Amino acid sequence: MSSYFDYAATCPIDEEALEAYVKASREFYGNTRSLHDSGTKAEVLLSHCRKTLANLLGVNKEGIYFTSGGTESNLLAMEGLMKAGKGNHLITSAAEHSSVKNSAEKLEADGYEVSWVPLTKDGTIDVSELENLMREDTVLVCIQHVNSDIGTIQPIGRIREVCDKWGAWLHSDCVQSFGKVELNSIIPCLDSFSLSSHKIYGPKGSGALYISPSVSFQPLLPNGTHEAGVRAGTVNTPGIAAFTTAAAKSIRELQERQTKIKALKREFLTALKDIRSQVKVVGESGNSVPIIGLCIHGFEGQWVMLEANRRGYAFSTGSACQVGSEGFPSILTAVGLNKEEAKSFIRLSFSHDQTSEDIQGIVECLKEIAAEYAVLSSQVEKPAFYK
Amino acid sequence: MSSYFDYAATCPIDEEALEAYVKASREFYGNTRSLHDSGTKAEVLLSHCRKTLANLLGVNKEGIYFTSGGTESNLLAMEGLMKAGKGNHLITSAAEHSSVKNSAEKLEADGYEVSWVPLTKDGTIDVSELENLMREDTVLVCIQHVNSDIGTIQPIGRIREVCDKWGAWLHSDCVQSFGKVELNSIIPCLDSFSLSSHKIYGPKGSGALYISPSVSFQPLLPNGTHEAGVRAGTVNTPGIAAFTTAAAKSIRELQERQTKIKALKREFLTALKDIRSQVKVVGESGNSVPIIGLCIHGFEGQWVMLEANRRGYAFSTGSACQVGSEGFPSILTAVGLNKEEAKSFIRLSFSHDQTSEDIQGIVECLKEIAAEYAVLSSQVEKPAFYK
Repeated sequence: MSSYFDYAATCPIDEEALEAYVKASREFYGNTRSLHDSGTKAEVLLSHCRKTLANLLGVNKEGIYFTSGGTESNLLAMEGLMKAGKGNHLITSAAEHSSVKNSAEKLEADGYEVSWVPLTKDGTIDVSELENLMREDTVLVCIQHVNSDIGTIQPIGRIREVCDKWGAWLHSDCVQSFGKVELNSIIPCLDSFSLSSHKIYGPKGSGALYISPSVSFQPLLPNGTHEAGVRAGTVNTPGIAAFTTAAAKSIRELQERQTKIKALKREFLTALKDIRSQVKVVGESGNSVPIIGLCIHGFEGQWVMLEANRRGYAFSTGSACQVGSEGFPSILTAVGLNKEEAKSFIRLSFSHDQTSEDIQGIVECLKEIAAEYAVLSSQVEKPAFYK
Repeated sequence: MSSYFDYAATCPIDEEALEAYVKASREFYGNTRSLHDSGTKAEVLLSHCRKTLANLLGVNKEGIYFTSGGTESNLLAMEGLMKAGKGNHLITSAAEHSSVKNSAEKLEADGYEVSWVPLTKDGTIDVSELENLMREDTVLVCIQHVNSDIGTIQPIGRIREVCDKWGAWLHSDCVQSFGKVELNSIIPCLDSFSLSSHKIYGPKGSGALYISPSVSFQPLLPNGTHEAGVRAGTVNTPGIAAFTTAAAKSIRELQERQTKIKALKREFLTALKDIRSQVKVVGESGNSVPIIGLCIHGFEGQWVMLEANRRGYAFSTGSACQVGSEGFPSILTAVGLNKEEAKSFIRLSFSHDQTSEDIQGIVECLKEIAAEYAVLSSQVEKPAFYK
């Protein structure tokens, strides 16, 4: 029975992926840049992984660069595209993962101008506001595909149309969508995108960046030899082999996993019905996105999370990479929640490996905590969150 | 029998390290930033690794930051220290690894001024030239500990004295020295240094940066939450656990390994005696440094390497991360070799796991190649390399 509901923070490794890691570590340990057979053997494996990942994504393998993860991919893309662009202006959103936010702030400190698109109440970016922000010197628009806190899917197709009008490039952080939702329709809209391995049951420390070979790009470090000069440092072949194994599996099983996730989410929300009046689902989490963001009436999310942990259940109060000084994800105020509501936020994220029993378990746990509150609240003044 | 002589490029993973990787992947998969037990468990392991590595190095654990490897460590250190410094001037050497050279060139492009210290004929940096280059606005001196191409040990103690006179920080790339030579005497001389895991039989994609907590530092990405804000991205706990396991083993067995390496190197050079007149050892490779750089009279290094590969032996023509446009490591011309000599360069790097039989094998291989040349050379004009 699984009591882990924090798959959006990180996943346990898939055993097939781990097996690939072990095999590659033992048998393909050469440096991919070495010209002897040991190096060539590793390079052949690397090349096979690049081709496999490209085929899974339906992109040109020349555009795939392996990195140490989603954060590095986002930084490399944003720096590399902004430096290669003719203008000085970057647009990103209030919903982005901290790696994108922080890269944008770095670029701002380096002299670029950054605009932040606000969100609508449903947790997607405000496309008309994006249109207002576009300028002649806008080089790059950087909008995530799936939000890591509340699971909303951003309207990439419409964003592409706006970018096209102004000749801007579009980068998307696909860390929370790859292997979870179908990417076929959005990939042709993107000039570059980021993937992470450990969010799809691959090893930590591995990820990829795709940059369309038709786009100009300036690497963070000049004169690199690994990864066509885009990412420096000895290539982590075992990590890449394991990541590719996990990626292939997640795409092969995508439909099956999606069906499972939809059923689990439905079951979860249904089972919550006894305390449904106390619970507000934040944003419209995409159908098969394994993330649900909730506010529980009058509870501090941190307290609920710790109480659940005491009962053996693991979930979070938002993305593990962000620590807002106020203790909740910034997207919550961006979608219109007030601070008190935002403080009551918890994020549950699911896995296709989970069962109905697991769902019943976590719901029972939340109900117990709510019941405990009912006792406590009879003794204290009730906060007026939800009318 | 081992026919791999390219341990300076990368090592096969140690089985104990791999076991640690597998165990941590299965049992400590949580995100170290998650506040539930799964996260805490991973954080406890991470913290244990940090403390272990700090103890092995005799440094404060607060200064240890885990990274994706040596290249990232060098970039983070150089950027972070230059940005935090009051001046604009960086000094590095003509002997550095490509990750340091490329970081210096990036900083130069960003507006910093970079000076390059030349080398003496023995492959160490010219300390009096370093003194001449020091200025009031020199923020950082960045000199490797052990050279990756010819294995020379740089005079870190004397370099520290020069830095102290001018109040400059000293960063050292210790990727080729950690686990190979004693670092106790040089660590107190350094403000920061870089380590890599896969050069000491740990997993690829893992490394560390030490920055003395007393030194100012500005992270590449602002607002980071992982690794005290110095290195962004989900922490690769399994990679770190395996790296730490390999590091602990390399330090525990250091003396034994050093004795073995010295004996292997001595045996290699002795066994070469039949073709000794055709061979020139480049630089004075530190006693227990497992690297020997050679020029073989009249042969193209690339040809020797490929011929050896055809016979099942793996070595290189220099660091796998650098591809000089001329096909040889730039340190060779820096120590005074002419281009023709430099082209005849090969690098062999050894492991404590190797045996006398392995050494005899590689020497026989080189002799065979030389004999083949003797036949060939009777038909062509002899190049006049070594008088």
